[in-house]
Amino acid sequence: MQYPNGINKSYKRTTPIANRGMTLESELNDTNTYYLVNDIAVIYKKPTPITVNKVDFKARNDAVIKEAHFIVPSTTDYNGIYKGKYIDFEAKETKKDNLPLSNIHAHQIEHLKRIHKHGGIGFIIVRFTMRGLTFTLSIDKLLDFIENESRKSIPLSYFEKEGFLVKQGYRPSIDYLKFVDTLI
Amino acid sequence: MQYPNGINKSYKRTTPIANRGMTLESELNDTNTYYLVNDIAVIYKKPTPITVNKVDFKARNDAVIKEAHFIVPSTTDYNGIYKGKYIDFEAKETKKDNLPLSNIHAHQIEHLKRIHKHGGIGFIIVRFTMRGLTFTLSIDKLLDFIENESRKSIPLSYFEKEGFLVKQGYRPSIDYLKFVDTLI
Repeated sequence: MQYPNGINKSYKRTTPIANRGMTLESELNDTNTYYLVNDIAVIYKKPTPITVNKVDFKARNDAVIKEAHFIVPSTTDYNGIYKGKYIDFEAKETKKDNLPLSNIHAHQIEHLKRIHKHGGIGFIIVRFTMRGLTFTLSIDKLLDFIENESRKSIPLSYFEKEGFLVKQGYRPSIDYLKFVDTLI
Repeated sequence: MQYPNGINKSYKRTTPIANRGMTLESELNDTNTYYLVNDIAVIYKKPTPITVNKVDFKARNDAVIKEAHFIVPSTTDYNGIYKGKYIDFEAKETKKDNLPLSNIHAHQIEHLKRIHKHGGIGFIIVRFTMRGLTFTLSIDKLLDFIENESRKSIPLSYFEKEGFLVKQGYRPSIDYLKFVDTLI
């Protein structure tokens, strides 16, 4: 099928029109809600860790935090259960054609290694925002790269070769459990 | 063995001297750290969920939260993996000889039900602080009580009959995985 000049290019994006501009985080939240209400899986994003310094107790049940700081998380952002399996992952967006390894904390990688060792399924989900492409990469393949390559970023080509392309759709918007199904 | 008047009473506590005054939360944190460093399990307490209203960006990487509110959690406080199994629980302390059901949010019970349905291990850990006794109660037994009893609190006697008494020790301070071992 032919489109007028320029239009076919935008159709190469895997992002449906409805999802354009949505962040990976909001799509994951929608997807996790879809999984929950359809009784497919129970997966949540963890709250952002903070340390609270000052709290005002204006009234009973109405405490207002007046000073707090964000702290570096010890674990990944998402975990839960699917088909009896423990699921654990971190989600990242990158505007480049690579994922700088500095975007993933060393203790998050350590955490995913532990999860894998204890029989869980650990991975990362990476969105290449300029291309509208989203890949999962298992902790195994992530460690393979870190241990064998000296580069400080993982190129898109590595995701294309070793990752799993997650198609974006309407419901759910980002069906990453299709990737988990290939592992169990 | 006889003790001077009054002293034997305090020896009925199962809490060792070193742990006196420690909250259940701090003992669980210590225990989870013990499980982690000894490669037994990977279980964390989730951060407290908040909504942030105001943030001051004083400098790069130095954001100070100036107004935030605590919000009701959708899930339980603790989850993780042990022997390949997804583990999920809520911890509560009570000063009474019962646990008021109002201490556990309805959506936390709903969450534990879902976990159980999907093949995970869901339970509550309850510390009776005045007695120094800590019990686990599986989501099954918790639901049995809620569905068959009209009482608005679960008496200690129900925990003694249907729960699992977790002995307190030195390392780990509260070895609740012994209870999980009885289920898997």
